Amino acid sequence: MPVDFRIARLDDLPAVVAMIADDSIAAARTGAYGPEHRAAFEAIAADPNNELVVAERDGEVVGTMQLTYIPGISRRGALRLQIEAVRVTAALRGRGIGRKMMEWAIERGRERGCAVVQLTTDKRRKDAHRFYDSLGFAASHEGFKLALD
Amino acid sequence: MPVDFRIARLDDLPAVVAMIADDSIAAARTGAYGPEHRAAFEAIAADPNNELVVAERDGEVVGTMQLTYIPGISRRGALRLQIEAVRVTAALRGRGIGRKMMEWAIERGRERGCAVVQLTTDKRRKDAHRFYDSLGFAASHEGFKLALD
Repeated sequence: MPVDFRIARLDDLPAVVAMIADDSIAAARTGAYGPEHRAAFEAIAADPNNELVVAERDGEVVGTMQLTYIPGISRRGALRLQIEAVRVTAALRGRGIGRKMMEWAIERGRERGCAVVQLTTDKRRKDAHRFYDSLGFAASHEGFKLALD
Repeated sequence: MPVDFRIARLDDLPAVVAMIADDSIAAARTGAYGPEHRAAFEAIAADPNNELVVAERDGEVVGTMQLTYIPGISRRGALRLQIEAVRVTAALRGRGIGRKMMEWAIERGRERGCAVVQLTTDKRRKDAHRFYDSLGFAASHEGFKLALD
């Protein structure tokens, strides 16, 4: 199943929001497509250290993820690639698209000189844990979140 | 113990690197202060979504942390505050400086309109887990890392 990758355009955004929302954990907090998503899209597009990426198959958007490049003093001044909001469209899950997305992201991180790739996943996503494990990631860290009002 | 906060200057950087390295887990991978840390400092300083912060007491740098503001589509287009590389100088640990740093960071996140504050800590740092728990953070996520060559 050939999959192409590119930076998301504004006209991809409704599909991206729908994929992010189509998930038992994230549905309630993502909301229907609206102006707040467009504002976030513009903020991502304006920031050279953030990329909203889509995966395409036969001209249709079938996956999305966000890449953030974070400079830091730790690890000898290493650049990190952080991956957030990884989704594959429901009808095509389990066919290796997620793996192609992660491999593409890791390669892009290498090209930009990142020393580490990092991500967190909700502890309830047991399948995701096995998936990242199979890609060579180590579950070495606890991920803490604090919601602000 | 009054503590002041400000954005780090280049002349703080040796102290910042020393604090990041003075840690059983991070020592080997941080390295001695050098040009790669200065390059990372410049990258952070040039990026409006990254802030290297120092805590000062009586004119001396006693703590450091990095704040990264990440725009995203998830959570209704929420801005996130991510905190990395939190350190308090060894001689002053256990006196509440870390708590003041986190409270300051959370307040700064609120001011910038962040909906969530997030961080990861190595699973071996049991004291840190209790500390973040006491600040209201939930250990809801698994943190995965993949080192690149």
